[in-house]
Amino acid sequence: MNSLVKKLSRKKLKVSFAESCTGGMLASSITSVNGASKVFNLGLITYSNQAKIKILKVSKNIIKKYGAVSPECCKSMVVNLSKISKANINVSITGIAGPKGGSKKKPVGLVYIGIKKGKKILISKNLFKSKSRISIQKLTVKKTIKIINSQI
Amino acid sequence: MNSLVKKLSRKKLKVSFAESCTGGMLASSITSVNGASKVFNLGLITYSNQAKIKILKVSKNIIKKYGAVSPECCKSMVVNLSKISKANINVSITGIAGPKGGSKKKPVGLVYIGIKKGKKILISKNLFKSKSRISIQKLTVKKTIKIINSQI
Repeated sequence: MNSLVKKLSRKKLKVSFAESCTGGMLASSITSVNGASKVFNLGLITYSNQAKIKILKVSKNIIKKYGAVSPECCKSMVVNLSKISKANINVSITGIAGPKGGSKKKPVGLVYIGIKKGKKILISKNLFKSKSRISIQKLTVKKTIKIINSQI
Repeated sequence: MNSLVKKLSRKKLKVSFAESCTGGMLASSITSVNGASKVFNLGLITYSNQAKIKILKVSKNIIKKYGAVSPECCKSMVVNLSKISKANINVSITGIAGPKGGSKKKPVGLVYIGIKKGKKILISKNLFKSKSRISIQKLTVKKTIKIINSQI
């Protein structure tokens, strides 16, 4: 994470995060680094559906039709975050960290990561195979850092 | 943190956090526990002053007059969070984790923790003596958990 903060700082870029299943771990990772305030301004941990609807203005219909863990919701989260934040790069995460909440169609470890830089939006679908909740969160943070790095 | 989640769950209480200097570490601590979604719905990491003003509706005057690291700002953060969240217990944190940003009047390690339950508001002033940023964040999270525990 240290090198990402340095890279963002050098390029004068700011990031904002909208996290669900990682519950603040991504923001906590970046803010553990000295000088994080230069590159990070805002994190929204919209853990409940209600928070996604109220704070991030994700439409109820998207959640009803596709579920909170869907590329549609992930996209809506990152697009709406970019409207709220003043960041150059916006990132959203929604998934199932478990141990409960999984299904055959949407198993534990299914995580969508969205990134928006300018008009470019990428949604990455991941299936992290681990039975530990923290391990899935850590793998998600690691993958997200990789994605951000690849886009700057 | 495990026992706090169990206690909140047993009492059917929900918590929401507005974090500044801890940068998501408090939210990340609670969401690392299985079943956190029963007791935690929303976290706002208002790291920049702009985020405090825009997302948490802290008035510019408070920040200008008292600074972001002040009991006044901490109180405004927790009161305004309680208006946004649907939680029974709202918590705000603002402080200086360092290594930079400290002054004689407001040294590194100065952290205000606010808690609002019903109409009761408590603001706790802390001075954590550590030179490590992460250690100050960890001490803040530990103290916050203790405060929440004492209020439920």
